[in-house]
Amino acid sequence: MALERIVALVGGVGGAKLAHGLAQILPPERLTMIVNTGDDFWHYGLRICPDLDTVMYTLGGLVDPVNGWGVAGDTTAALDALRVYGETPWFRLGDRDIATHLLRTQRLRQGERLTTIMRELTRRLQIGPAVLPMTDAEVATIVHTREYGPLPFQTYFVRYRWEPTVTAIEFEGVERALVSPEAADALAQADAILIAPSNPWLSVAPILAVPGLRELLLQKERPRVAITPIVAGKALKGPAAKLMAELGYEVSPSAVCAYYGPFINGFVADERDPELEQPAMPVLRTDTVMSNDEDRARLAAQVLAWLERGTS
Amino acid sequence: MALERIVALVGGVGGAKLAHGLAQILPPERLTMIVNTGDDFWHYGLRICPDLDTVMYTLGGLVDPVNGWGVAGDTTAALDALRVYGETPWFRLGDRDIATHLLRTQRLRQGERLTTIMRELTRRLQIGPAVLPMTDAEVATIVHTREYGPLPFQTYFVRYRWEPTVTAIEFEGVERALVSPEAADALAQADAILIAPSNPWLSVAPILAVPGLRELLLQKERPRVAITPIVAGKALKGPAAKLMAELGYEVSPSAVCAYYGPFINGFVADERDPELEQPAMPVLRTDTVMSNDEDRARLAAQVLAWLERGTS
Repeated sequence: MALERIVALVGGVGGAKLAHGLAQILPPERLTMIVNTGDDFWHYGLRICPDLDTVMYTLGGLVDPVNGWGVAGDTTAALDALRVYGETPWFRLGDRDIATHLLRTQRLRQGERLTTIMRELTRRLQIGPAVLPMTDAEVATIVHTREYGPLPFQTYFVRYRWEPTVTAIEFEGVERALVSPEAADALAQADAILIAPSNPWLSVAPILAVPGLRELLLQKERPRVAITPIVAGKALKGPAAKLMAELGYEVSPSAVCAYYGPFINGFVADERDPELEQPAMPVLRTDTVMSNDEDRARLAAQVLAWLERGTS
Repeated sequence: MALERIVALVGGVGGAKLAHGLAQILPPERLTMIVNTGDDFWHYGLRICPDLDTVMYTLGGLVDPVNGWGVAGDTTAALDALRVYGETPWFRLGDRDIATHLLRTQRLRQGERLTTIMRELTRRLQIGPAVLPMTDAEVATIVHTREYGPLPFQTYFVRYRWEPTVTAIEFEGVERALVSPEAADALAQADAILIAPSNPWLSVAPILAVPGLRELLLQKERPRVAITPIVAGKALKGPAAKLMAELGYEVSPSAVCAYYGPFINGFVADERDPELEQPAMPVLRTDTVMSNDEDRARLAAQVLAWLERGTS
């Protein structure tokens, strides 16, 4: 089975790694990323889109290799100057990063769609694959916590370092959001859909919550495969494992597979974990840890080869 | 004659020097600057107020001592990143400077008045004297040129390095501008008004063009004194001399004195120039060149002493 066009649903750092793996092995016209924008927020008058920028900086070769987000070698002179004004900025705004936010915010204020803006910015950075926001509408992931009540995502994630206990997650404004024509086209034409090893509840759920997107995913028979973000009982990065426990899930690939159940027909687990018991779908067990560029390309190639074999 | 309260009308670098001289010798509650905002413009979605910021940075001890504008030791990482996106930014936006623009722009978008915003920013930088914009409205100095037609001020001044020949100057939007209550109060209470050695046509004329401001200047008998920006046939800085010639004026203190004629009743010329012939008002001849902090304080003190003697 030839899989000509691939769509990946991605969040931030983990999603960007898979995106980079796919971009290394596929010609750009065959690859589209649909990216979580629930983390986006306004800060000092700038519209900041952390996941979109992480994917863009990663594909553009600009990303900070240690953090996995932000621009390599970036400085914080503007942030330091905000402190001179008595501000206590809690979100790291690099100076080079600010250029992205300025260009994006200016265009948003002029009425351009985020999709159009990201197409222009990625074009200027000579990035081939399409990097699409999940919607052009403003959607805000709100994390309800036991300690502080509802928190905007970045407040929970950065300011409170995901320490509060999560009781529920809400996507504010999602009921008014629309799938963009570009995302709808990509989903209509895709021969396979991958869900990156991003946080299912915080990074992928917002994408799946955009009205109409689930139907576009399920509109035809084709491989729809998620890659586990849980390896050996832990999240490789961020709050996924802590969050699963707080929400009452078992911290395991099986629980992730079951969570995605209605949307996927294949699952990629890590070889470090035992085989899933009575899985509801075909499972590929492999090394899912992407420690370097080669790992990313290898995992992407393994998953695509598995799909082309018919998940056998 | 005791001169309790002083108002200075100021532009950018030259105005900031006089402001700093006055601030060195007067308690802050006795001193108010009314600053040109005709140079203000939108750039990458930021509201930039060059003259206000030059005055603020100078009074706050942050100014770049070589340029006389911008923040000392500032970097340009954001600007460099804009170039990575293929932009060709022609206006220098320092990274630290961007913090000022972000704070200001965010508050303007929230509906705050520029006067209120500048009061807050100067308070945070522990600047005592009031630094007031000439108006809260957006006014744009348009420089009509022989070569390129009408140019926004910064395009003429920075992008084209004031090389085009000026045929006329216009203050777009000034007819809808209002003197702020704060500026009106300061002008009502002032015991003397100084016009800084800023460019009369580009920096002071916009202030005088705000409807009602001339009447507030002239509402009562008191010293109103301008300091020459022309010394020994030249402008100490910027296009004043070139502009005067292009507009058909003789490049001399006399021509500046005559230009301000209706608004002033005293003039400060430089001792390097010959005595004005048949001046229409008292003239103080002194060293008006402010090369360092001491020069600034000395000139401010000399002018105030002259006014307190009754310009004798």
